[in-house]
Amino acid sequence: MPKKNAFYAQSGGVTAVINASACGVIEAAREHDDRIDRVYAGLNGIVGALREELIDVSQESVDSIAALRHTPSGAFGSCRYKLKSLEQNRAEYERLIEVFKAHDIGYFFYNGGGDSADTCLKVSQLSEKMGYPIRAIHIPKTVDNDLPITDNCPGFGSVAKYVAVSTKEAALDVASMCDTSTKVFILEVMGRHAGWIAAAGALAQETEGDAPHVILFPEVAFDKEKFLARVQKTVEEKGYCVIVASEGAQYEDGTFLADAGSVDAFGHKQLGGVAPTLANMVKSELGLKYHWALADYLQRAARHIASATDVEQAYAVGRAAVEMAAAGKNAIMPTIERAPGPDYDWSVGEAPLNEIANVEKMMPKEFISEDGFGITAAGRDYLLPLIQGEDYPPYHNGVPQYAKLKKVLVEKKLKEGFDV
Amino acid sequence: MPKKNAFYAQSGGVTAVINASACGVIEAAREHDDRIDRVYAGLNGIVGALREELIDVSQESVDSIAALRHTPSGAFGSCRYKLKSLEQNRAEYERLIEVFKAHDIGYFFYNGGGDSADTCLKVSQLSEKMGYPIRAIHIPKTVDNDLPITDNCPGFGSVAKYVAVSTKEAALDVASMCDTSTKVFILEVMGRHAGWIAAAGALAQETEGDAPHVILFPEVAFDKEKFLARVQKTVEEKGYCVIVASEGAQYEDGTFLADAGSVDAFGHKQLGGVAPTLANMVKSELGLKYHWALADYLQRAARHIASATDVEQAYAVGRAAVEMAAAGKNAIMPTIERAPGPDYDWSVGEAPLNEIANVEKMMPKEFISEDGFGITAAGRDYLLPLIQGEDYPPYHNGVPQYAKLKKVLVEKKLKEGFDV
Repeated sequence: MPKKNAFYAQSGGVTAVINASACGVIEAAREHDDRIDRVYAGLNGIVGALREELIDVSQESVDSIAALRHTPSGAFGSCRYKLKSLEQNRAEYERLIEVFKAHDIGYFFYNGGGDSADTCLKVSQLSEKMGYPIRAIHIPKTVDNDLPITDNCPGFGSVAKYVAVSTKEAALDVASMCDTSTKVFILEVMGRHAGWIAAAGALAQETEGDAPHVILFPEVAFDKEKFLARVQKTVEEKGYCVIVASEGAQYEDGTFLADAGSVDAFGHKQLGGVAPTLANMVKSELGLKYHWALADYLQRAARHIASATDVEQAYAVGRAAVEMAAAGKNAIMPTIERAPGPDYDWSVGEAPLNEIANVEKMMPKEFISEDGFGITAAGRDYLLPLIQGEDYPPYHNGVPQYAKLKKVLVEKKLKEGFDV
Repeated sequence: MPKKNAFYAQSGGVTAVINASACGVIEAAREHDDRIDRVYAGLNGIVGALREELIDVSQESVDSIAALRHTPSGAFGSCRYKLKSLEQNRAEYERLIEVFKAHDIGYFFYNGGGDSADTCLKVSQLSEKMGYPIRAIHIPKTVDNDLPITDNCPGFGSVAKYVAVSTKEAALDVASMCDTSTKVFILEVMGRHAGWIAAAGALAQETEGDAPHVILFPEVAFDKEKFLARVQKTVEEKGYCVIVASEGAQYEDGTFLADAGSVDAFGHKQLGGVAPTLANMVKSELGLKYHWALADYLQRAARHIASATDVEQAYAVGRAAVEMAAAGKNAIMPTIERAPGPDYDWSVGEAPLNEIANVEKMMPKEFISEDGFGITAAGRDYLLPLIQGEDYPPYHNGVPQYAKLKKVLVEKKLKEGFDV
């Protein structure tokens, strides 16, 4: 293949380390300048390609690109935009290929979760059919840790570390207040339908019986009586109870706790409220004083407390994607492979996209303790290596100094726009 | 005064650095062993004294005491327990003096906010009247930064840094998602009736127009129309809007936004919800997609991102309290004094407790911008030095390694218990 430009885009909810993958892509592409000419990044993800809004990465300084390694969020902009199926909207895929053709793009690096793996696969298939082959590589990214085959997903380790550290710190706070004040603390965390992030709260434990005392997973049907009994017992025994609840926690019948009832003054249903729902239960049924926190974006943006392991892996899969593309590979995703044995050792492997796309990996049953409120030793063995190491960003004026990109757009070449 | 024991207690809501003050007290007391024999700490604050539950600090290792400097929360336990006035419950004060007498305690170090300064003063006055003089020194601690005379309060700088860092990180997240998803992000922070913590969100700004775009202070009456107009305008101009809201935000008539309406499915009023209240407004009146976070205890327990300046000051006031007591002083509080001039320079001063007790320091008007949604240059000049420097705790297994005390109780000497 003659020298071609590369397109890189960030997709879906961002993470503390997705920019480390971008950094890996861009730095590796520089080393492959015999095959890769320029790197263009989609402004706000794939919609940037559809709108022909391409950021010319060569306009950014070497230092700015290096700083992406310690910058959270999506520096080029991301998007929640799922391309429809080929049957429903072939025009979108054709537009992508047109834009790629117009800008001599031969490499497509798509940095996202399950949906974007699917898009990446389709782009690769369609481009071939349309006579303009593109090497499409998907770069894994999701705090939800729900991609198959790969041992873990870049982005997860850092949110896991944030949740473990925050749980440990808040638990010390409650422990010191519980004699005369707050008895129950609830931290609501992300994770959608998978309990990986909630499970990470358990890494706050040093010894058995340490906080968190209750973890609520989406994988375990919520049983109100059992939950309240456990909270009550924990408060009796320890003086306080710390709960980490997944936003996806649900009843046996699939009703989310977050949907289970709150309405505002205008009668509008309030969503996103597992923690307040639980807090109300604790208050009304047990009469215990509570506090609750909702970390929301703070948890996935918390680059200041990122896992060094996660940063390295995010960077590595970015680099690997370019190496793979330069080596002529297509329709694959670099994966993290864990070596067997007691010591943690990882390397980058690869998996075909048709085995990745649209498959959701849940917490295995053997990672959840028998009572459903905690994790097992196997779960801990899996999770613990992923939060190892600190990778502090540089600070200026008391706050982290994160990359600020110029985001210079390439001149458009197509006559027609495209509505997204 | 002959050699006496010292009593130390932690009071009220804990902070990321109150244990650094404890560390300062204990380490300085060791150096004054000609005057101070043992240090006893109240188990769960002042109620530990009332119950005669005294932790013998000499049973803790030197390393454990040193580790208090990097350990958040109240390692000896704190309490929300305000002693009643002398008229209402003289028995409580008399009990305190009895316990102090029984354990040969001649020094009383009380580490807390405005209420505990008042208690500290009363103990000093009453003990003298009862013929058992005690040198009572109050050590400032409050994330709310609302104590008078002292330039700032230990505990505040670290929560300020947490809020600044978290706001900066979450803002990057929203910025990268706003094209197709979340447009408004709201972070609810602590601070009670004072807007200091919310103001610290402004330290996330590098240049004018940076996030946060709106700060809601308790000191500025909430005007719904003006607020919504500002949010709308910001989203139009920047694509997104980041809001930092104080839990104490209130309407002109004094109604808290947090009280303004939410009820759960059972008709129970929900409190602590400035952020969801604002989010509902943004959704129902402007139709914008939002996310919100409630940091709650996470913010004041976040020792992992403590301000080095704050840690130093917390430690310094702990040490100073002992120096002052050893020098024969009484009924005072060590303060932080800021030297005049453009460069930040501080030293420890002192203030009489009768000028501290029951006085609440609000944000000065000149720190709040004219539109009421931000801070002025003077506000920034005041706040910025307080979040300088990082003081990372050691890590083990991916999480901070915080002090674990043995908390060995001294044998009781009084025949009677005391109900608290």
